[in-house]
Amino acid sequence: MTPAFLGLGAIGRPMAARVAAAFPNLTVWNRTASRASDFAAEHKVRAAANPADAVKDADVVVTCLPTSKDVESLLDGPTGLLAGLKKGAILVDCTSGDPATSRRIASRLAERGVDFIDAPVSGGTSGAEKGTLTVMVGGTQQLLDRALPIIKSFGQKIVLCGPVGSGDALKAVNNAMLAIHVWTTAEGLATLAKAGVDPKIALDVINTSSGRSNTSMNLFPERVLTRAFPRTFRLALLDKDIGIAAQVARENKVATPVTQLVADLFTMARGELGEVADHVEAVKVVEQWAGVEIS
Amino acid sequence: MTPAFLGLGAIGRPMAARVAAAFPNLTVWNRTASRASDFAAEHKVRAAANPADAVKDADVVVTCLPTSKDVESLLDGPTGLLAGLKKGAILVDCTSGDPATSRRIASRLAERGVDFIDAPVSGGTSGAEKGTLTVMVGGTQQLLDRALPIIKSFGQKIVLCGPVGSGDALKAVNNAMLAIHVWTTAEGLATLAKAGVDPKIALDVINTSSGRSNTSMNLFPERVLTRAFPRTFRLALLDKDIGIAAQVARENKVATPVTQLVADLFTMARGELGEVADHVEAVKVVEQWAGVEIS
Amino acid sequence: MTPAFLGLGAIGRPMAARVAAAFPNLTVWNRTASRASDFAAEHKVRAAANPADAVKDADVVVTCLPTSKDVESLLDGPTGLLAGLKKGAILVDCTSGDPATSRRIASRLAERGVDFIDAPVSGGTSGAEKGTLTVMVGGTQQLLDRALPIIKSFGQKIVLCGPVGSGDALKAVNNAMLAIHVWTTAEGLATLAKAGVDPKIALDVINTSSGRSNTSMNLFPERVLTRAFPRTFRLALLDKDIGIAAQVARENKVATPVTQLVADLFTMARGELGEVADHVEAVKVVEQWAGVEIS
Amino acid sequence: MTPAFLGLGAIGRPMAARVAAAFPNLTVWNRTASRASDFAAEHKVRAAANPADAVKDADVVVTCLPTSKDVESLLDGPTGLLAGLKKGAILVDCTSGDPATSRRIASRLAERGVDFIDAPVSGGTSGAEKGTLTVMVGGTQQLLDRALPIIKSFGQKIVLCGPVGSGDALKAVNNAMLAIHVWTTAEGLATLAKAGVDPKIALDVINTSSGRSNTSMNLFPERVLTRAFPRTFRLALLDKDIGIAAQVARENKVATPVTQLVADLFTMARGELGEVADHVEAVKVVEQWAGVEIS
Repeated sequence: MTPAFLGLGAIGRPMAARVAAAFPNLTVWNRTASRASDFAAEHKVRAAANPADAVKDADVVVTCLPTSKDVESLLDGPTGLLAGLKKGAILVDCTSGDPATSRRIASRLAERGVDFIDAPVSGGTSGAEKGTLTVMVGGTQQLLDRALPIIKSFGQKIVLCGPVGSGDALKAVNNAMLAIHVWTTAEGLATLAKAGVDPKIALDVINTSSGRSNTSMNLFPERVLTRAFPRTFRLALLDKDIGIAAQVARENKVATPVTQLVADLFTMARGELGEVADHVEAVKVVEQWAGVEIS
Repeated sequence: MTPAFLGLGAIGRPMAARVAAAFPNLTVWNRTASRASDFAAEHKVRAAANPADAVKDADVVVTCLPTSKDVESLLDGPTGLLAGLKKGAILVDCTSGDPATSRRIASRLAERGVDFIDAPVSGGTSGAEKGTLTVMVGGTQQLLDRALPIIKSFGQKIVLCGPVGSGDALKAVNNAMLAIHVWTTAEGLATLAKAGVDPKIALDVINTSSGRSNTSMNLFPERVLTRAFPRTFRLALLDKDIGIAAQVARENKVATPVTQLVADLFTMARGELGEVADHVEAVKVVEQWAGVEIS
Repeated sequence: MTPAFLGLGAIGRPMAARVAAAFPNLTVWNRTASRASDFAAEHKVRAAANPADAVKDADVVVTCLPTSKDVESLLDGPTGLLAGLKKGAILVDCTSGDPATSRRIASRLAERGVDFIDAPVSGGTSGAEKGTLTVMVGGTQQLLDRALPIIKSFGQKIVLCGPVGSGDALKAVNNAMLAIHVWTTAEGLATLAKAGVDPKIALDVINTSSGRSNTSMNLFPERVLTRAFPRTFRLALLDKDIGIAAQVARENKVATPVTQLVADLFTMARGELGEVADHVEAVKVVEQWAGVEIS
Repeated sequence: MTPAFLGLGAIGRPMAARVAAAFPNLTVWNRTASRASDFAAEHKVRAAANPADAVKDADVVVTCLPTSKDVESLLDGPTGLLAGLKKGAILVDCTSGDPATSRRIASRLAERGVDFIDAPVSGGTSGAEKGTLTVMVGGTQQLLDRALPIIKSFGQKIVLCGPVGSGDALKAVNNAMLAIHVWTTAEGLATLAKAGVDPKIALDVINTSSGRSNTSMNLFPERVLTRAFPRTFRLALLDKDIGIAAQVARENKVATPVTQLVADLFTMARGELGEVADHVEAVKVVEQWAGVEIS
């Protein structure tokens, strides 16, 4: 089996490192070439000059880019993926993508005899490093089985979700819930702070009661009460994700007023906080409008 | 110490039973008198004829009624609480109340030399039976200390939240978060179901990822996927609670667009489903609008 | 008939001037005493030292203050309204008030044999000067008839809306609609501006089509496209008004998700723009989040 | 000049009738063939067997279908538009379409040397019959000039809005405002009705005050107070239109929380009321949730 890996960003790089450890015949490519050549030197694999060159011998190609549109933009041109991919290869797109674009990419690849599954991951950089990512796959069991040896090098919980695009959809909905929890926990704690309840006490009670979530149990104690706000996952990316969830709901004619509202609140927060803010910093916007600090 | 307990409903009755076990000198009262006389017979305590009679010898009076307005309506008249309460007594209101009314009650009691703390509970009927309720207290440490022997008979985690009304506020915000989680998990899973993702698979992934909550980990697997929808906590009461949270936010001028929206969505759901529906049945309204079942 | 007028603010002053012209026996009072003495000198009427003094001989007392709470706070104390009002007098409250507080004031006055109607006005300072205000009255026809000679001196369209508080409710709902129109016209035009449609052309079409409103036909052409944003009606007051409408809806258990959302959006806008901004400046918040100017 | 007209629905038919009166050389086509043959017989013009046949000699082709997707679906196949259109022809799409699909159609036509403008109309069936429609054009002045003789036969106010898709965008935003006004006027009047204010009195006051709109001045007095609810414009189509406005806002990253919310409320209302309900019947959903009738 001959793999290729395109996109050596914050998550892609440690994922590719695990593939390299299992498959020394890996070829990598990255838009900023120096990241690819550094990676190749460190892991003793080949760095390709362009996407077509990267995939020309590959059976399984993994992509991990910011958006589905970025993947789509690699398809065309003399050095694009379509110019290089072998008939019978499979593209495993680990981008946190959107279902409509994934289906379009799958359709264009199918015309050339190339298969496609969407396979976004969760678990963060530490999960990528340890090979314990959750992988949400959209496609068929048969296609997943073909790519499984590569996916297993970085993924632990590997789940077939449904047809092409459904991995993207599930990732987007999970992240939409995260966004909703961050925002609404802030609404609740800001209200309580102004009503005279210490946020530490409030969280202590909520976290043993019916209103608890991963966000209230972990993110708020560690990041908000402490005012640490480490930058681990950009608000701009979470804004993109909840936007995808909102779009999938609209395409499927599901009335989702809360998801739609929080999608816009994150767009506002992104406008207020900029492109480098962490996703938990959305709390600061709620605090600012309320004139109170949750601490 | 001489206690009295007013309000022997679903939660009040097992709470009073625990007080009776520790304080055989308990007096109880209930609007429907037969519930009080049955309780008195079973627990060998006294049933009073009216609120004034119930509290005439009491140092600590516990109330547990549907709403703060119900407590307020017991104050006046020849057989009301104000006619019976001893100077120096304390009223411990375990109603899931609203802060504004609690403050008004406290103020009227203070004119008669009677103290007040709000002390709503969480933990359900089973927590009440086992004496493991969480009790959220609004008042002062000194007042809480005076009532503590009684509260300890039914509560395990007893937390002073802040001034009068802050126990109510915290209870309401916790329940608002529950309501938000029920609604938004339904939005997400209905979207995924229509996009071709099996809700069981979706929950399995979300529950190991960043979007998880107590609602997604417990309520949806046990009650929604199974279509069991046991009636344990009425939607009408949760609608009241999120309404209180929304009102506290408005009184404190905290912009809480999501809390306000979900408050109205529960009002709509209550209109659709009626007064006896369980809180988790709100999911059915999302399903109906989407034309899909989460199962 | 002997009138008194309390509250000589932006609207109150020209209203009182019209009463003074018709009733030279008018007495006025204002919190900032110099405004009252200046008015008295100009219009040759009496300025009272305090509320009790102002109303001691009056049959009809008009109040026009920022909020119902301000009126309520004038009731008590040795120089308060209750200390001065004659039995059989009527208080006509022209404040843009809230129904719950109005009902409370009515109830306290009734204990002293004084009647009450709420009578908020619309039409702005120019309507007040010309005596062409619309007056929305909550009370009974009989009470309105008694106060009519005074009300007619500043009002043209005088409408009995229903029981006490219903004048307040109607004023608040009208202003909530204004707030909704300002916000949503901004949403629509900001969207179109970013989609390449000139806002002037957009307004020209909308204003001959089904989407038109008083806001799109008058406020946007005169104040937004021109970037004039004259300060005629404070955003802080409109925020108060839509908050009252939202509260009335909640008290009456009417699901009003859009009203509730816009109430919070105006609270956010007030947080961004401060207390002196004009109500139409809310448009600037929509523009800022969108990164586009409607001009 | 040789025109063709495709789509003889409620609006299309009277528009085509006016084109036929001015251009006896018109060819028409409709999916249900009998509507086309009836029209042809009545107006003494030619009915074509299929889209390709309809447009084979045409310089200017007008389409008027339910959605942009319907237009797009006519492009391909041996009897599709692309098979029939002459190089140098222009397609004038009067569908209430969506900008993204219009741009895609324009791009595919351009490959064949055919031009495209989107040109949705407003003014209803009576405007179509009288030739007084407003026509919102997306494209260039030059293209509009070429199609102008045909457009003038049914349009009176003909406005160039911006690039391709901007006619669609403006139509969608206008209709989104209509939808918002219908919904929020219902929220306000339902609130007032429950607060004891007669809706007739409320409308009478609002319609002379700052909260008035075309909806409050015309639709509510004529259709809601009377309970007439004539079926002139389907709620399902308005739901589609506000969905387009919501999508254009998202594509352009404009935070539009109110538009998004009302889009979902109309989706809910459509679920409750079905496909044949009139747009003003959305009021009935607000009434049902509130338990009150606006009459």
